[in-house]
Amino acid sequence: MGKNICIMGAGSWGTALSVLLATNGHKVRMWSFFKEEAEGINTHRENIAKLPGVWVPDTVTCTNDVNEALQDAEAVIMVVPSEFMRSTMKTIKGALKDNTIVVSCSKGLEDETFLTMSQIIKEEAPNVRVVALSGPSHAEEVGRSIPTAIVAASVDNEAALFVQDIFMSPMFRVYTNSDIIGVELGGAIKNVIALCAGISDGLGFGDNTKAALMTRGITEMSRLGEIMGAKPKTFSGLAGIGDLIVTCTSMHSRNRRAGILIGKGKSLEEALKEVAMVVEGVNTTKAAYHMAKKMNVEMPITNQAYEVLFNGKDARQAVVDLMMRDKKLENV
Amino acid sequence: MGKNICIMGAGSWGTALSVLLATNGHKVRMWSFFKEEAEGINTHRENIAKLPGVWVPDTVTCTNDVNEALQDAEAVIMVVPSEFMRSTMKTIKGALKDNTIVVSCSKGLEDETFLTMSQIIKEEAPNVRVVALSGPSHAEEVGRSIPTAIVAASVDNEAALFVQDIFMSPMFRVYTNSDIIGVELGGAIKNVIALCAGISDGLGFGDNTKAALMTRGITEMSRLGEIMGAKPKTFSGLAGIGDLIVTCTSMHSRNRRAGILIGKGKSLEEALKEVAMVVEGVNTTKAAYHMAKKMNVEMPITNQAYEVLFNGKDARQAVVDLMMRDKKLENV
Repeated sequence: MGKNICIMGAGSWGTALSVLLATNGHKVRMWSFFKEEAEGINTHRENIAKLPGVWVPDTVTCTNDVNEALQDAEAVIMVVPSEFMRSTMKTIKGALKDNTIVVSCSKGLEDETFLTMSQIIKEEAPNVRVVALSGPSHAEEVGRSIPTAIVAASVDNEAALFVQDIFMSPMFRVYTNSDIIGVELGGAIKNVIALCAGISDGLGFGDNTKAALMTRGITEMSRLGEIMGAKPKTFSGLAGIGDLIVTCTSMHSRNRRAGILIGKGKSLEEALKEVAMVVEGVNTTKAAYHMAKKMNVEMPITNQAYEVLFNGKDARQAVVDLMMRDKKLENV
Repeated sequence: MGKNICIMGAGSWGTALSVLLATNGHKVRMWSFFKEEAEGINTHRENIAKLPGVWVPDTVTCTNDVNEALQDAEAVIMVVPSEFMRSTMKTIKGALKDNTIVVSCSKGLEDETFLTMSQIIKEEAPNVRVVALSGPSHAEEVGRSIPTAIVAASVDNEAALFVQDIFMSPMFRVYTNSDIIGVELGGAIKNVIALCAGISDGLGFGDNTKAALMTRGITEMSRLGEIMGAKPKTFSGLAGIGDLIVTCTSMHSRNRRAGILIGKGKSLEEALKEVAMVVEGVNTTKAAYHMAKKMNVEMPITNQAYEVLFNGKDARQAVVDLMMRDKKLENV
């Protein structure tokens, strides 16, 4: 049976998910922050600016009115940029019934608190059931029905199964996972490694270098994750290494692009100015660095990234320092 | 102190390792199967055909004479193609002193026996100490001193430390690992996934699809590895996912290239004819398929690869069948 689903956020990922849910037989109300965007989608059946070329079915209605979007919703899919997660939750929490399933599709950690998106949702609306959806999933490909696999994570197994059910299709495979903190940390801190992979590319290093950074990066990230309550194995899954692979092989990644510019000798300020969009990995590097210090976790790649980004260390020297550390056992 | 090292095999990888060892201050005698190749390297200080543009230091001597190559060797580095590992070991085993350190740098499983390279070495010369060297390492990049990280694996920790010592340099970082069977299986069976990733690319699928195949592929490979005595975590390391990343992003990979041709509709025979070199992943798919059946391990990607390669199954249908299996928990 088709469900009534509300999607909060009508960017490329929100729009791609609306197409997927509508194709699966659900009725979708999508909210956009921008009135013109909402009207444009309703009129043209396409988000021309953010997901061009993907047809939006008639069973998707877009609105700029939060209450209209939330009406009769059996599940609420949050696809707002991570920096707006808390303000959006503050706006909608009064309208959420007890036990509503709220799905976070945004990746990132909150500034200063370092909270994950599901933690923000729970803090604002303790009465809802939270699921995180994460994995290697360019919106452009999902919108074009290219085979994709992803994870629905929740401590509430029934809620995770509900999300698996509504999204699963012949071209969109959903696995469930109980480790929501691991899945969210994977999606957030993989951007630190994507930045480093970009720096390596910018320095003119090779495929060997990048594969080593990615592999050892995931290893140190899973060490930090474990201290924060995640299962280390989650980082070897779709929301960890899977998402990292997609990020590091794509020129769409702002984190990788910023890294390339820094590797070519630009300062952090110059690189951020040139990318001209939020580069989540920069703040996440700071967060991971301070958490690792506090928790006494060894994170050599993150430490060097921090020195390069915030203390002006030469990137080539950082790589040499990484290579010349004490001889080690491979602790995977 | 510089050591006397023998390298058996003067292809691109053998030559790159000879340059690395000589740069580290060791005296290298390298054996080539081809007399002209040995003479060419000695004369031109370059393996013009297989590693063009990389200068070979004077402390490397190349010979076609096995006994000359092995003389006074404190370690023997085996870099012959995997199908010649047994015959080469038969040739040299009489000349190996007890406790000589023999390093396998070849990847693959023996036809029919499914033995790893170190198992073949031990079978032929039970009196030596075996180490496997594996990880994401294009010879072209190692020859050019591009930063690379790799694993030296052995049940004999002292032997692994010796290998770490002789190879480690500011641009070549060596980790030790006691799980030699995991490291070798990772290097061999990653080719099955590389084939599948190629098929996906050939079908015109996307980055999402390939990242999912790589992530879930490593998961099922580590399940098989565990049954065969490996540590599952090893597959998340440099010799597992690290090597897979390098293989799946490179056009140098014969396995990936053969997969692309099959994805575009060619038969296995046509694809192998066009690649015109050994495609290890084909035999490894057969080996993994039969081992999984025998051991009762679930390997959905390997099963579909087997059907496509050997039973003429349509590759697109295989992907759909993978996507539409029962809903699952993410077992990483």
